[in-house]
Amino acid sequence: MMVIMINPVPPAGNAEEPPMNDHYLEDLEPGRRWTTGSVTIDADAIKAFARSYDRQPFHLDEEAAEATFFRGLAASGWQVAALSMGLLTENGVPFAWGIVGAGGEISWPRPTRPGDTLTVHVEVVDVTRSRSRPDRGIATVRNETRNQNGEVVQILVAKLVVPARRPAEATA
Amino acid sequence: MMVIMINPVPPAGNAEEPPMNDHYLEDLEPGRRWTTGSVTIDADAIKAFARSYDRQPFHLDEEAAEATFFRGLAASGWQVAALSMGLLTENGVPFAWGIVGAGGEISWPRPTRPGDTLTVHVEVVDVTRSRSRPDRGIATVRNETRNQNGEVVQILVAKLVVPARRPAEATA
Repeated sequence: MMVIMINPVPPAGNAEEPPMNDHYLEDLEPGRRWTTGSVTIDADAIKAFARSYDRQPFHLDEEAAEATFFRGLAASGWQVAALSMGLLTENGVPFAWGIVGAGGEISWPRPTRPGDTLTVHVEVVDVTRSRSRPDRGIATVRNETRNQNGEVVQILVAKLVVPARRPAEATA
Repeated sequence: MMVIMINPVPPAGNAEEPPMNDHYLEDLEPGRRWTTGSVTIDADAIKAFARSYDRQPFHLDEEAAEATFFRGLAASGWQVAALSMGLLTENGVPFAWGIVGAGGEISWPRPTRPGDTLTVHVEVVDVTRSRSRPDRGIATVRNETRNQNGEVVQILVAKLVVPARRPAEATA
């Protein structure tokens, strides 16, 4: 079964920087931004994910969903998170160890509906080297997932573990 | 394909309260705790999720994973989040509108490995009625996902939208 449709062409009018590849802590700076490709989610994909992971009526069945909080079929927030991750990893991963998430803050300001096309807008907001482990650091990255109308459906401020090219202190 | 194996029997020695059903804001109080059933994740399930959503070597292939940060195959954090959600919804959903997440803070203190059996330990930590919309409120719920050794693999402090049984103020 085809779960998602990937459109690897970036949205038109993208004046931001392209994805980075194999970047280390020293290569990152706050303010760096880029945009992923896009993915369209249909009702079958919403229901398939729900059957495996999130068996609630507003994710499983159009008719049952009408009587719920969401007033219609909506994707599980965890599917939106997973799809957003897929977009981030699609054209090669920008960091040397891959996207290794220590954690983050996530919110879903509005539902994702069947037929929505999602794109992730990424911005590096902070880069901090670890004091206890100078071979690495934490990059804080704000990921806004927007639909085809430019509306934000998910905000993920993620703390990613990124390796340093050189340790901060030489070992004795 | 069978993605996950559900074991709906709660772990032995569970002295906490059973899941609630159809509970409203007035029925919740901080300190209320319960434990879900358990789920075992195998290597095939880890790789299947990764192929659809998170195509990084440490989620896709045992051998390639050895050379990565994770030193072996590990589940995508978003799969751990989705499986944890599955456990929460498995025996009926405890809140009247279902589990409607506005957002939350998530972290993964350690990787989830093939063969791990996960259980979610839930605690209500705060209940606040909305000022602007008195028909509802936010329940803050701490969800610890633990493996078969009792080690915490995910912490999700989630803000859930929960309906009030009665509005705080009668309309004029």
